Amino acid sequence: MFNKVLIIGCGLIGSSILRAILSKKLAKKIYVFEKSKKYISTIKKIDRKIIFLKKIDKNINDVDFVILSTPMSSYEKIIPVLNKFLRSKSIIIDVGSTREKVFSLKEKKLKKTLTWILSHPISGSEVSGPQYGKKNLFENKWCIIFKDKSKAKLNKVKTFWRKIGSNVIFMNPKEHDKIFAITSHLPHLIAYNLIETARDFQKKERKNLIKFSAGGLRDFSRIAASNEIMWRDIFFSNKKNIILAINLFIKNLNSFKKNIQNSEEKNLIKKLLDSKRVRKKIVQLKHDIDKPDFGRE
Amino acid sequence: MFNKVLIIGCGLIGSSILRAILSKKLAKKIYVFEKSKKYISTIKKIDRKIIFLKKIDKNINDVDFVILSTPMSSYEKIIPVLNKFLRSKSIIIDVGSTREKVFSLKEKKLKKTLTWILSHPISGSEVSGPQYGKKNLFENKWCIIFKDKSKAKLNKVKTFWRKIGSNVIFMNPKEHDKIFAITSHLPHLIAYNLIETARDFQKKERKNLIKFSAGGLRDFSRIAASNEIMWRDIFFSNKKNIILAINLFIKNLNSFKKNIQNSEEKNLIKKLLDSKRVRKKIVQLKHDIDKPDFGRE
Repeated sequence: MFNKVLIIGCGLIGSSILRAILSKKLAKKIYVFEKSKKYISTIKKIDRKIIFLKKIDKNINDVDFVILSTPMSSYEKIIPVLNKFLRSKSIIIDVGSTREKVFSLKEKKLKKTLTWILSHPISGSEVSGPQYGKKNLFENKWCIIFKDKSKAKLNKVKTFWRKIGSNVIFMNPKEHDKIFAITSHLPHLIAYNLIETARDFQKKERKNLIKFSAGGLRDFSRIAASNEIMWRDIFFSNKKNIILAINLFIKNLNSFKKNIQNSEEKNLIKKLLDSKRVRKKIVQLKHDIDKPDFGRE
Repeated sequence: MFNKVLIIGCGLIGSSILRAILSKKLAKKIYVFEKSKKYISTIKKIDRKIIFLKKIDKNINDVDFVILSTPMSSYEKIIPVLNKFLRSKSIIIDVGSTREKVFSLKEKKLKKTLTWILSHPISGSEVSGPQYGKKNLFENKWCIIFKDKSKAKLNKVKTFWRKIGSNVIFMNPKEHDKIFAITSHLPHLIAYNLIETARDFQKKERKNLIKFSAGGLRDFSRIAASNEIMWRDIFFSNKKNIILAINLFIKNLNSFKKNIQNSEEKNLIKKLLDSKRVRKKIVQLKHDIDKPDFGRE
């Protein structure tokens, strides 16, 4: 499918794309640019043919597909290098989790002759690093891509994601960031905040809470263990929508609190039943596995 | 271990105790009192020797171990029946998730000659009903029991939980309710509220959020699918501690919001890293499995 592919940043997502490309034989040559020595030594074991670049310079001149899988905060530094060395035939994609800011960065900074098709694969994990990458990470997952004037290149990117197993869907950056503020950014923020609250309580009361985390807390601790650089970038780059989401959440929480305080049984039961229905739909749509307790144990 | 055991209420927890008792051969005879016909027909398939009671009356006179595994809101109705028909040799346990209210109910309503040793096994699931019960549900889980003046009976209850695999620990009701407000009640409430917030947003914006729940939301939907009667009872019976927990949570959430709003990088990163450490401890202590993404897929 491609002659030469370059992966910039090869952590969980980058190395999963790398594995998927190797497994589906989608590239003749694969270059990797990765700063971490530890990551490099892990990636070396995946395939001996991977070529590691010490820096991105004229050696990328003939690359036809660039995958930007660094934290979003690094994009600004990388763009000038791509502008300088990449030929206009190439396609750039990234895999970042917020889109409005990235889209406007691209519009402002990327050379007009270059093509960058924003992609967001809805897949990931609480763990970081190439040792956790999997060739099937994208299989049966959504990948949201963003329209571009170059129809041929857009089709190529669509085909790429499909070949590695994703269901491709189009969206505009504004809509994307609104939706993911609720389905992803708010849940992560809430999980972090719940763990923080438990830590505060533990310090104040000098009680061992973690010992009893199986009552529900442990579920949240998984998401709250996600990569801190990635999530700082997400929280900062989708500020407006996240703050609206927090406000809506607090409004609902206060109403929940009132239901409890005043023993408003009917309202409370309605809320609990409504939530149950959402779970049912999520499982029906196969967005989660159909086993109690996530099939743990 | 026991001659005759009576299980009142035989859903997920009751039927798991039933299965554990059968598997470890801890009773000569097992009586079950269960109102749901559907549940009864499921339980019948577990073992043919189970005796189903149509009502609790003098037929329970010689029962030596009673397991109360109904929602907590039913205790008040059941106590007078136990007062009337149970002999003083017997031991009663329950499996409720809050303890102060139950303890004071017991003190007020239970006949002084009877012994009820409060127990709270830290195990459960988002699913309800005997079809989901498992004989090993309590294995390697904490069971919190509450001191009683009858040392011999207390030891018997301790031995019972140990025999079905639990690690027994003593606690007083007040301390219990404080701790579980944070480790269990708040996480459930937050999960319900998050799903509620997503539903509100979906209605208002007419966007299909559930489709993109794999970004984090689906984790919360599991807990938010828990039994509504059980959770209404928990929220109402641990009001005071839960409201304090909500207030602490909102205070922290507002500070998190401020960090995002003002791009306070250092504070934010500190919070994210601290949460990561909690997850590490939880996994080290084997309160959760050591696989990314709960080992899903």
